[in-house]
Amino acid sequence: MNAADQTVPGEFVVALDAHGGDFGPVVTVPAALQVLSTHPGLKILLSGTTDQLNPLLDKHAASGQYGQCLERLEVCEASHALAPDARPVAALRRGKGSSLWLALELVAEGRAGACVSAGSTAALLALGVKLLGMLPGIERPALMSPIPSASGHTYLLDLGATLNVSANQLVQFAIMGAVACSDKCSANPARVALLNVGHEDGKGDTVVREAHAMLRELPINYRGFIEGHDLFAGKADVAVCDGFTGNLILKSGEGLAAMFFQHLESALGQGALARVGGMLAGRSLKRALARFEPAKHNGAPLLGLQGVVVKSHGNAGRKAMANAILEAVKASERLVPQRIETMINEYSIEG
Amino acid sequence: MNAADQTVPGEFVVALDAHGGDFGPVVTVPAALQVLSTHPGLKILLSGTTDQLNPLLDKHAASGQYGQCLERLEVCEASHALAPDARPVAALRRGKGSSLWLALELVAEGRAGACVSAGSTAALLALGVKLLGMLPGIERPALMSPIPSASGHTYLLDLGATLNVSANQLVQFAIMGAVACSDKCSANPARVALLNVGHEDGKGDTVVREAHAMLRELPINYRGFIEGHDLFAGKADVAVCDGFTGNLILKSGEGLAAMFFQHLESALGQGALARVGGMLAGRSLKRALARFEPAKHNGAPLLGLQGVVVKSHGNAGRKAMANAILEAVKASERLVPQRIETMINEYSIEG
Repeated sequence: MNAADQTVPGEFVVALDAHGGDFGPVVTVPAALQVLSTHPGLKILLSGTTDQLNPLLDKHAASGQYGQCLERLEVCEASHALAPDARPVAALRRGKGSSLWLALELVAEGRAGACVSAGSTAALLALGVKLLGMLPGIERPALMSPIPSASGHTYLLDLGATLNVSANQLVQFAIMGAVACSDKCSANPARVALLNVGHEDGKGDTVVREAHAMLRELPINYRGFIEGHDLFAGKADVAVCDGFTGNLILKSGEGLAAMFFQHLESALGQGALARVGGMLAGRSLKRALARFEPAKHNGAPLLGLQGVVVKSHGNAGRKAMANAILEAVKASERLVPQRIETMINEYSIEG
Repeated sequence: MNAADQTVPGEFVVALDAHGGDFGPVVTVPAALQVLSTHPGLKILLSGTTDQLNPLLDKHAASGQYGQCLERLEVCEASHALAPDARPVAALRRGKGSSLWLALELVAEGRAGACVSAGSTAALLALGVKLLGMLPGIERPALMSPIPSASGHTYLLDLGATLNVSANQLVQFAIMGAVACSDKCSANPARVALLNVGHEDGKGDTVVREAHAMLRELPINYRGFIEGHDLFAGKADVAVCDGFTGNLILKSGEGLAAMFFQHLESALGQGALARVGGMLAGRSLKRALARFEPAKHNGAPLLGLQGVVVKSHGNAGRKAMANAILEAVKASERLVPQRIETMINEYSIEG
């Protein structure tokens, strides 16, 4: 079935790996329908196995809840699904025809403008590079995600796509981040910074110091080194580091936030006074702390490929998955891959 | 003045860099007196300039608040103080006779059992290595600090003493951490883990994978890889990584916690209901969230040197500085350097 052939001109098409993530179609299908119901110009190609998807779609059709939206949700038949923890070698060897492979292929063939998956990051990376290829001048891919900060949010990259980096690669990440987090013609170019163990020029190892020297020469809004505590203080719009460090910053922050909420909840449940206090302050607390909710920040663009690819958290629920799909739409509207290629050519940052 | 010559046998002596940190003697002197007032077997050598210290000590003597404690606080005259942001080269060239240099020298000469400073980390490192020397078999030093976690706290190292590490060095850090966070004859050996981007054996770069393979062969309580979110979940007592990553995990966590508290406070101040609720729940909240208070976790042992050295936060107040001094006493009681040397010899982990 060549679903995209039937695409109405002007529509935007997202390919969604229906089986990615911990919950598969039970989450991806309702998330897709939710996004379609609020975005009339959107079409979603569900890459998955019909035996699992059709019964779900029939159920939604029978419920009548999403009405005409179902017409903009089409199944593209995949032969199987990869394991949630699929390794790169397994993905490359046994991935052909899988829901993830097909979703990426739909982008490679121009039948979709972006791909979203909550599957294994390692498999997404390996197949993304294989099927879409790297952008000319970009050596390694990078995953980027917004994190809450005093200025709203700060984009952090890389989150684990490239564990060790060269100075050139850090510079490429900085450029990719600057492009991905800003609109085509923004009056306020993104403030880009390198994460380091100190602010001063001499701090850090040779890789960050070299990248720092190179970034200062580029016509981007480079603000120099920032430290860990500056990240949440909102001192930059884009914070750049190697994938090992970025992954650990992100995940330890998620762990700290979870622990904080547990303590908050338990404190507000202990003793009559605290319980009454918690009830009275509850709404205000919820509103103030909503920005820490991980679902709001789901959807990490995988930058550096010749196409828009967005990774969702494996444990994403419907709302979080819907955010990841919207992130893919936004990246496509911003022409992220095209603008990265232009900038890299312009600045001649090659390895 | 050779203060330690007058030490009563059986007493424990700590050398304190009186001028280290953002506040200098205004914080270090009262912190020292506070610790002395609760630890009768302790003596503190204040390394600093008499023109700044004597008036402060006279004031405390006149107030009568600390009574006999003042007798166990002695000034060792330094010629000057290093800048709070002193670089290693400057510390090595112009550090001789400074309050930090002298405090370390007191340990090197056996006149004090431990040294505490809130001065520049880089200077402390450079002078610590020069004046005390590395333990045989330990290639690089590591800073370690407790962070709050579900199991009470988890010790994280390295926090920035060694930015890039080899597999051998990670193994040495793991052993040092295991020793430093447990008593001499603990029935429950510390659970040690390596921080990584995944739990599985094949995850991470070659350095962490090699260290993982080596640690599995050692007779320590090694629990394998943990991820960022496991850190605060208390899955390990000691979490090991390179100093670049550790520094950024620690400081970004501090920044995130600060942002939480700001939001919490502002939420509990918005609207009458929230204000009343906040007042009612306040005590319970404070108690529950006290563990996130940075002052409680002040005092990072600098491991790998031939002597006990503890780094305090530069902006530590009296209470936090007192904690750093107690941390130094604890590390000495635990015979940390001696036990590290024994274990490294036993396991023959050399570079």
